[in-house]
Order: sequence, then C-alpha cells, then structure tokens
Amino acid sequence: MTRDRGRVVNGLGRRVPAFIEGLGAFDPYEGPWSRLERGYEAPRLVPPLRGSMPRKTKVVESLRRAIEASGLQSGMTLSFHHHLRNGDALLMAVLNECEAMGIGNLTLAPSSLTDAHDGVADLVRRGVVSQIHTSGVRGAVGRAISKGEVPFPVVIRSHGGRARAIEEGSISIDVAFLAAPACDPQGNLTGALGPSGCGSLGYAQIDARHARHVVAVTDHLVPQPLNRVSIPQYLVDQVVVVESLGDASKIATGAARITRSPVDLKIARDAYRLIAASGLLAPGVSFQVGAGGASLAVAAFVRDHMKEKGIKGSWGCGGITGYMVRMLEEGLFEALYDVQSFDAAVRDSLVRNGNHIEIDQSWYANPLNRGCVVHNLDVVVLAALEVDVAFNVNVMTGHDGVLRGASGGHCDTAAGAKLAVVVVPSFRGGVPSILDRVQTVVTPGETVDAIVTERGLCINPRRSDLIEAARSARLPVKEIGDLKREVEALTGVPRPNEPDSDRVVAVVEYRDGTLIDSVFQVK
Amino acid sequence: MTRDRGRVVNGLGRRVPAFIEGLGAFDPYEGPWSRLERGYEAPRLVPPLRGSMPRKTKVVESLRRAIEASGLQSGMTLSFHHHLRNGDALLMAVLNECEAMGIGNLTLAPSSLTDAHDGVADLVRRGVVSQIHTSGVRGAVGRAISKGEVPFPVVIRSHGGRARAIEEGSISIDVAFLAAPACDPQGNLTGALGPSGCGSLGYAQIDARHARHVVAVTDHLVPQPLNRVSIPQYLVDQVVVVESLGDASKIATGAARITRSPVDLKIARDAYRLIAASGLLAPGVSFQVGAGGASLAVAAFVRDHMKEKGIKGSWGCGGITGYMVRMLEEGLFEALYDVQSFDAAVRDSLVRNGNHIEIDQSWYANPLNRGCVVHNLDVVVLAALEVDVAFNVNVMTGHDGVLRGASGGHCDTAAGAKLAVVVVPSFRGGVPSILDRVQTVVTPGETVDAIVTERGLCINPRRSDLIEAARSARLPVKEIGDLKREVEALTGVPRPNEPDSDRVVAVVEYRDGTLIDSVFQVK
Repeated sequence: MTRDRGRVVNGLGRRVPAFIEGLGAFDPYEGPWSRLERGYEAPRLVPPLRGSMPRKTKVVESLRRAIEASGLQSGMTLSFHHHLRNGDALLMAVLNECEAMGIGNLTLAPSSLTDAHDGVADLVRRGVVSQIHTSGVRGAVGRAISKGEVPFPVVIRSHGGRARAIEEGSISIDVAFLAAPACDPQGNLTGALGPSGCGSLGYAQIDARHARHVVAVTDHLVPQPLNRVSIPQYLVDQVVVVESLGDASKIATGAARITRSPVDLKIARDAYRLIAASGLLAPGVSFQVGAGGASLAVAAFVRDHMKEKGIKGSWGCGGITGYMVRMLEEGLFEALYDVQSFDAAVRDSLVRNGNHIEIDQSWYANPLNRGCVVHNLDVVVLAALEVDVAFNVNVMTGHDGVLRGASGGHCDTAAGAKLAVVVVPSFRGGVPSILDRVQTVVTPGETVDAIVTERGLCINPRRSDLIEAARSARLPVKEIGDLKREVEALTGVPRPNEPDSDRVVAVVEYRDGTLIDSVFQVK
Repeated sequence: MTRDRGRVVNGLGRRVPAFIEGLGAFDPYEGPWSRLERGYEAPRLVPPLRGSMPRKTKVVESLRRAIEASGLQSGMTLSFHHHLRNGDALLMAVLNECEAMGIGNLTLAPSSLTDAHDGVADLVRRGVVSQIHTSGVRGAVGRAISKGEVPFPVVIRSHGGRARAIEEGSISIDVAFLAAPACDPQGNLTGALGPSGCGSLGYAQIDARHARHVVAVTDHLVPQPLNRVSIPQYLVDQVVVVESLGDASKIATGAARITRSPVDLKIARDAYRLIAASGLLAPGVSFQVGAGGASLAVAAFVRDHMKEKGIKGSWGCGGITGYMVRMLEEGLFEALYDVQSFDAAVRDSLVRNGNHIEIDQSWYANPLNRGCVVHNLDVVVLAALEVDVAFNVNVMTGHDGVLRGASGGHCDTAAGAKLAVVVVPSFRGGVPSILDRVQTVVTPGETVDAIVTERGLCINPRRSDLIEAARSARLPVKEIGDLKREVEALTGVPRPNEPDSDRVVAVVEYRDGTLIDSVFQVK
C-alpha cells in the first residue's frame, strides 16, 4: 500500500514524497528561508459566514448530540488541542463516541498527541482513524505509525507550521472539539479557570477561527458572562457539558524542577556560558527555554546572571514553565508570551498577572504571517534526541527509527532566534547522540548555532563570530567531527540507520510547508 | 450620472437599487430574519498568507513612507476606525498625504465619520475620495453626500453589518490605517493606554484581520512587549510614529451627564416604567443604552430600581458610557462588553477591571456569525430622529432629507433584544417626530417594541403581551396613529417628504446585507 508518489531529494539530501494521497502535492525543503525569500503567498481557508438567530441555544446535553449536530461524517477531519497534556480525556471520548456511532476513516488533527492518547493506536487498527496530522507522537501511537499501521502517511508539523497549515487550509478542519476548562452558555471560553484549568489555549484559538464547526466541551459551565475570554462566542457553534475533561493532576503537574543530574548541569552551565559570551544577555534580552532537564537548568544559570548583573530582559515566550513565571515575578522579564502553560503556577500567573500574555499559535511561530513572536527571539535553548555533523537535529525518532518525539516549536524558534543552542548529552544508554546523519531531520542545521554536550561544545562554522567569542571566553569549543569521534571512541561506532522498508509512514514538514524529511516503516 | 441600476421595491415598500456601480448587486430587504431563516451563507474574504523574515523592521518614519510601502494606489479602499471620535486627526492626515502624493479616486471605509472629518467633503470635490462606506455622517460630509457630490452612492451600514461586510468582502480593504494609542515596534497595539487612549478598539480589530495591508499609526511607541494587546503584531505590516493622533480632549470627553431636560426625564421615566413592567428587570438582565440624553437617563432609573430591589444584572454592552461603568462598579452588572468606549472613565475601567471586556465588532453585532452579543440582549434603549406609524426608525436623515446621523448599533440591537425601546420627543423645533412614513428607514418597525415620548408611549401591536403589561402598570399607552394626530394638532401636519431628485446618493444596508432604503439627492 503506497500512499505517496514521486519521491524527490530535497535540499538536505533527504528523499521525500512529491505527492501524498489525500493530501496532494508537497514541495521539497530547499533551505530555511527559501519560501520566505521568494515571497511565497498562500490563499487562506476560512469557513463561510453563516447566520444565527437571536437567542439560539448552543448547549447540548451530550457529546453524541454534538457530534450529530456537527454533521460529522466518516472521512472528515477532527481537531483537538493538547493543552490538557497527559490529563486529556476528551480526544479519546470523542473518538470512542464516533466509533460507537459508526463513524470511521477519520483524519485526526490535534495540536499534538500525548501519553493520554495511546488508545488512538487501537482506533487506527479498527479503522476509526486513518490519517493523522500532529506535532508529537508517543508510545503506542508512535509504534503503530512506525510499523505502518496508519493507512496514510502521518504529517508531523511544528507549532508554527500547524498554524500555517490550518490558516492556508492544508489542514482543513471539519469539526474542532475544544476542551474548555471554563465556558459560558454562549461559548465564550478560557483555559485559565475551572477544575481542569490548563492555562493558555494558544493552539485551540487557531482551530476555532478556521474549523467549519466548533464544539466547546466543558466540565465547568458558568453563567454568561465569563469574564476572561480566550475564544469568543462567535466562533463557537455548540457547548457540551461533560463530567470531566480529564485527570486534573496530570494537566498541571506542579512546578518544574531543575535537574540534579551532574551531566545535565555541566551541559547547562556551558550552554549558559556560551549565551553569556555571545553578548546577548544584555538589557532587553528575549529568551525561550524548554521544560527538559538541561534546558531548564540553563534558565537557572541565566537567571542568576541577570540578577547578579542587574539585567532586565524584555520577554520570554513559548511553552511557559513555572521557572519562567518566577523570572517574570522577579522582574527579570517585562512579559511572557504564553502559547502553552506547563503547570499550575503558570496557569495561575496567567489569570493574575497582566504581563503574562496568552498568545495563539500563529502569533507564536507561524512563518507566513506579518511577524510572529519567535522571529524576534534573541536566545533559545533546545533539546535533541540526535544531532549530526551538519548540525541537523532530530527530535522525532529514536535510534530504533520509531516515532517517539514532538516537533513542537523546535524548528520555529531555531529559525527565529539570533542564537539557537541545542543541549544534548553526548550519548544516552551507550548510544552516541552525534551522528554523521540524523535519522530524521526536524530542525535544519543551518538554523542551529551551537550544540552543547558535557564533553564540549560545537559551534556552527557559519558562526565564526560566535566561535571567536566562545574561544575568548575559554569555552571548550570542539569541531563537531572531532567530538563525534571522541564519543565513538567510548561507545563504538553505531550501525548506520538504514530503514527496514522503503515505505514512508510519516513525513516531517518544515514550518514553511515544504517536506524536510520522511520517516520510514520499521519492522 | 446614475451609478445605480434596476431599482426594486423592497419588503418595506422602499425603492432600492438592485445594482450599484463599483459595488455590484444587492438584494432588497425582505424582513429582519429572511436571510437568517433561509440559512444564508457567504464566503469570507481574507488576505493571503505572506511570509516575513525574522527581525523584520516594521517601523517607518512617516505616513508617506508607510503609504508608499503599502502599495496604496488610486482607486483602492482605505479603512479607519472612529474610536478617537471628534478628536481623530489620522483620517484627514492620511487622505491629505494621499492627495499630496497624487493618489485619488479612493474608496473610504471608516467605521464611522465624525465632526473631525468635515474635510472629507473637500477631498470629495477634489477627486481624492469617490466612494464612501460608513455608519455615520455629519456636517459638511453629510451635506456633500446629500447634494450628490460623491460620484458613487454611499453605503450606510450598522456596526454589525460592517463587520459582516468586511468579513464577506463586500468591503474589501486594501490598506487599513489603525490609530494606535499605544503600540510596540512589532505592531502589538492597544487603545487603552497612551496620551490618545480611547479605550476599546472593537471596530479596528475586524479591519486588522481582513485588510490586505495594515498600518498602525501611533503617538506612543513603547518598547516590546506592550503588555495589553488588542491587535496582535502578526496582523500588522507597518508601524508609523506621528507627533499626535489627535486632540485628546475630544477623544475622551469626560463623564456623560444625565439630562436635566424635563421632557427627556419624563420620556426616560416612562421608558423605565415600561421596562420594569415587561418583567425583564430581573436578576441576570442584560442591558444596552445609548449615550444620548433621554437614553442615558433611562439607565439612571434602571440603576435606582436595581439597587432598590437588590437586582444584579448579568452584562451591559455596546458603546460604553461612564454611567455603565459606574453600574459595573456598583455590582449591578457582572461584566461589560465594550466595543467602543465613550469617555476617559470607560478607558480607565477597561485597563483596570477584568470584568470590563473589550469585544470586536463581529462579536458585538454581526448577524452572520455563530452568535453575537446583541443576540442575547434583554433590553435596549435607543434614540431616533423620526419614527413612523409602522414603528420604522430613522436615525440617518433630518427632516430636510440631509444625511446627519449614524446607523451605529441601532438596527443590530433592536433585532437582538427581547425589548427594544425607542425614546424620542414627540416633536423637535416644531416638527413632529411621528410620521406616516419616515424619510429613511434604518431600523425596521418589526424589530421595535415600543416608542416612548413625553406624551405617552406606543407599543408595537405584535407585542400584545407588552401592551397588556403596560396597561396593568397604568402606563400612558396610546395607539401610535392617535399620538401622531395629537402631536400634529399642536404642530400642524408636516409636508410629506418628497425627494428633490430621483438620484440615489446613499443606500442604507440592513445588517444582513440587504438594502432597506435609499437616500435621494437634495437641492
């Protein structure tokens, strides 16, 4: 069963399909700026205007009634947001209801899939889901995709790329189901309040503007007027009240902790030293850091530096952790741009602090608008599963070739930031992290400035200024080929990754809509 | 010079064009719900997605540079918002600059025109402006239009109708100029802060989403991040810094005062008594009232009633006055939905009070979305220039037939509210306000429940329930024909309004996009 045709070799030497059944033609990736520099324009897809009579009742009593009223049929596209993360119960509830109603062959287009969505693998096997657009895949779903169980190739997108895809209609959402932690009967809703409060609804805001039918599902219906509105009533067709949107304890998982791993701390310290050497840690600095161990630890070093030197930054952005909130509250940033809130402290800050600004996915990172937040980032610190000697980064597939990661804002922020630093241990479980060629490129090396490991740091040769600054700061700069060999001397040289099959089970779309890589079937 | 063709008689017996040169075909008005009930759908017009490179500089040094960079050419459509009201200097500055650059034959599509825009009349004569879409016209511009000086018929729309027209592309904006009282270099902007702070930017938000090119003009450029964002950066192409957006003293004109006119107070008291008699002044009531003398006085009576009876309403909406803010602060409403802030106290409340919610023009009143605020109004109190025995209301033309009013939210709220009360003195300057046939219909009588004058109140015969309630409350209910004759006995019978010419100088669009009336040329 080949669902793609006419493979071509893209600007990174990767084989990618020129056509995918059900999705149409794709251009191969050329370079991070190729489309932007050529002045690429895309028409936008928006649903038609439809009138509604005064005093229309939107509240329906069950998911089933909402699905019936939405006109959802087999073969259509459903979207969800993943702001409830591992606590989300809505996606599975809707798909199970669809199955019970005999609706199948669905295209699933969530902002991402989390551990809460393992059941999707079985729904694929039973024909309920036949195509998936997502940013991340984990566990059973990743394995099912990698084994070729999803009939059509899955499309992996970054957050900015997803906003772009929805706005231009590459993802054409028939029905958006919005988990709404607080909602009024007219459909005004927010993620910041209620027992399932998750914070920002940055991903869902784009779905609400572009889906043909929008269903808000809430476990906290409040009388109109809800006084904090992330998505206004005029984008919402129906409101469904359910017992619970999920497991609140897994939605907001408590303050993120700084790693105690000596390896991670060493990496973080050197990453921080590189950032300091770059000269960017100056008043007005803007900053994004992930929630992972070493990344978050970089924030701790940066924070100490800023406090010590009396530096006040301008803003932080991204998926926001409690650590960033603390920096906001300490006055180290003027504001936070929050597209996704990682814990309860973040959600509460969003409610309480006017300088904590909820932003949507397009505002955050869409390269095809008039200017997204990440395009003015100074510094971003990013994690990796693998890197290669061309500085390409893989955050999607494990060394066994199985999908188990998330594209997220990785390539968006790397492209936008003045300084994109990837922090990665030089090996994990005996397998080196620096390869001749990563299994799957998510972020092109051209947009990565430095890779920091516990055995030294490697700077992209196109950044001779940064190499010089790092050497002046006596940082352990190494040529990336040398570092690779140094690690291999310890671990041995891994067997090159050769796909088990020529069948493409997933494609990785670069943020601009071109295909940057293919993921092949594993046994 | 006839720019319209194929006149037809609409559902109110009014002659309206079937086609207007440069604008295309129009359907005649049938009834307030005809299009909605038929499930009318309209495709939406949105500009294409266009990429932008990281660290793109948006700030340009002058209006001229911004106009050049926008690609604005003769024959194109410009939009403006009127949140700065009589203090706005931007509209004239841009048009004067266009003239200096040799750009003419422009279509002007502001949310409304105010006294600050008298100069447009001369620009029309000099060929800079040749077509106008607006909600209101005053003074010299109204006279110029009425005298037939604008080459093409002007289109008058309600606030909800304008949102609809922009969303569906009936108004296709080439360049939107947004007066931005506070703006950062990326184009994040708000109306709530800065020396020209005007409050809500509800009208401008729609322009920003739909214009092909968006220019933010500010006299208060702040470093990124501006922490209150009404319009996000990704909708803005350019930022221009100017000395001043206008005369701040005319932007926020101080707290609205309750009328002392005995006639207005008598009207207001009876209007309040009717509202009370309707049973709608119950917990959870929603309410809109205009800023005019008698209207605002109704709010004062309603406030006293609510305080006395311990009634807590749900929300107020519309153009918000300081009086409504006071009621919010006194706990008489849970929230205010603010599409336009009428004074400084309102602007400050918007900044300070989380229950004071900025809403856009579509959210407020667009009949062709999934549910606007006014569609859940309980009570609205509206002013009028003239009414007629079929309860039709004219708020656009004086008894001389000259344009001098504003459509505003009049027909939107009348259609949406459970109870729409029009307050009007029975005559003004010796001319009766109740006619056999209003000069210009803006709001159809079918959506008006009652007309209250100082000589008694008239209830729409289709509201037999309300007639009964009013009689039970011993209100001075009169049959409208009787009241008309009573007034005429004092004033004499006015000469029927016969247009001087058959030339249509303006059309009044009902909120759903059909033509409800024509305005004919006067001498």
